[in-house]
Amino acid sequence: MKLIRYGKAGQEKIGVIYDGKRLDTSAFTANYDETFFETDGLVKLKEYVKANHTRLAQISDDERLGSPIARPSKIVCIGLNYADHAKETNAPLPSEPVIFMKSTTSLTGPNDGITIPKNSTKTDWEVELAVVICQKASYVTEAKAEHCIGGYLLHNDVSEREFQLERNGTWDKGKGCDTFAPLGPYLVTPDEIADVNNMRLWLKVNGKTMQDGTTANLIFKIPYLISYVSQFMTLLPGDVISTGTPAGVGLGFNPAIYLKPGDVVELGIDGLGEQKQTVTAYSK
Amino acid sequence: MKLIRYGKAGQEKIGVIYDGKRLDTSAFTANYDETFFETDGLVKLKEYVKANHTRLAQISDDERLGSPIARPSKIVCIGLNYADHAKETNAPLPSEPVIFMKSTTSLTGPNDGITIPKNSTKTDWEVELAVVICQKASYVTEAKAEHCIGGYLLHNDVSEREFQLERNGTWDKGKGCDTFAPLGPYLVTPDEIADVNNMRLWLKVNGKTMQDGTTANLIFKIPYLISYVSQFMTLLPGDVISTGTPAGVGLGFNPAIYLKPGDVVELGIDGLGEQKQTVTAYSK
Repeated sequence: MKLIRYGKAGQEKIGVIYDGKRLDTSAFTANYDETFFETDGLVKLKEYVKANHTRLAQISDDERLGSPIARPSKIVCIGLNYADHAKETNAPLPSEPVIFMKSTTSLTGPNDGITIPKNSTKTDWEVELAVVICQKASYVTEAKAEHCIGGYLLHNDVSEREFQLERNGTWDKGKGCDTFAPLGPYLVTPDEIADVNNMRLWLKVNGKTMQDGTTANLIFKIPYLISYVSQFMTLLPGDVISTGTPAGVGLGFNPAIYLKPGDVVELGIDGLGEQKQTVTAYSK
Repeated sequence: MKLIRYGKAGQEKIGVIYDGKRLDTSAFTANYDETFFETDGLVKLKEYVKANHTRLAQISDDERLGSPIARPSKIVCIGLNYADHAKETNAPLPSEPVIFMKSTTSLTGPNDGITIPKNSTKTDWEVELAVVICQKASYVTEAKAEHCIGGYLLHNDVSEREFQLERNGTWDKGKGCDTFAPLGPYLVTPDEIADVNNMRLWLKVNGKTMQDGTTANLIFKIPYLISYVSQFMTLLPGDVISTGTPAGVGLGFNPAIYLKPGDVVELGIDGLGEQKQTVTAYSK
């Protein structure tokens, strides 16, 4: 099953992609949020769509897509989880996962565009595979962590490298700016993914391939990451864990390459769809 | 005005302290959450209580107090914001504020107790003055930041030092464990605070004073902090900024002193009330 949210930003309605068509599921529930996931919404929605798909209103392909999930309680990110990326940023291979957090106000639709923050000179890209949690997880084992996976989605973990690395303190400063977490186009349930550890992920800037990796190279795999994070904080239904980026970020070039107004970023992961963002300068 | 939330954890109802009495305000609105703050709830609640206080049900003093605010979109913390604390932890004085984030699942009532996480040997205390934001703030000036202050409250920024400092990655790992953010007993609106930059804050462990500071020693003051954080992420109504801790944390002693099961932590800030937490080991 593929879940979408569509319509005006902040007023998204919910739907699914069924048999190649976008169908509205607003009659089933209000939103894809914590309540939806914790009340076994994914299972019930699947039954609902199967029984009702001929009656559900079709959504125009022109409709804007939002993040496939409502604002979660948190977005936890894993740093340096591909060996080639750790190397390009001159960071040692982590002996255990590196965790940081993105402000959930950074959440945006997959094609809404990236805004370069005020005073930013080092806005960078990071294609990532993200996971949505479907049940509360605290001190879960790796074996049980599998049952906490609601689905997978594409995430551009947009990062401001000066804010992140040169402005004192933790990485969080350069990770949570508005528009820094495009999610989607859809949330894909695990039954539709043949092998989550063998998915190609890629990112282009102005048509040129910058990142081209595979989840086969993840240092720490997803069940381990869920189990690990749950040792330090309780994961709630609807929460997001983003699993890290492969080599090819702007910071890794010599000299580094950063985004400028007018740039077009495209990214994708096998089976999880594609995103396209036009970059603009902050203005207000 | 002093706002409280009371009742069973996770099912708190709302109230105020008026004329020394706890009064239920459930008939006014559902919760002290983002919607409440963004719809000018503080101003309207004050008028409501003034007009209706004789008719409001009195809450028993035996009722448990929860966090005075519902789960916010984020808890942003400022590190090393008192010179004496930076010195005791061997950290240089920050040239600009250090930011980190606490998972909002760490939120708990002021007297609920602290749970030492599994595998923790370095659970520590930090008395802090926290601010609740009452309107959306993005790139706000220091002057305008004053209008974003909904109120002040007492926060114990409980911290696991090994998770924070020795386990790879950002501080977030040691800050967001369950029970690590006792807030309250009440949220106090700014009109009731004579001088926020001249408040004593203290913390005792088993009756012995460990921290005894004053907000006069804050390196970065509150309007500056709000303005500063809003350059990196948008603050939403109901969000919390915790402003840092003075000297006297367990990590600062030689040898360091950490919490153990059975310890009793008491803390307070002038005008913002007191908290009392019994420490227990994680068990499940």
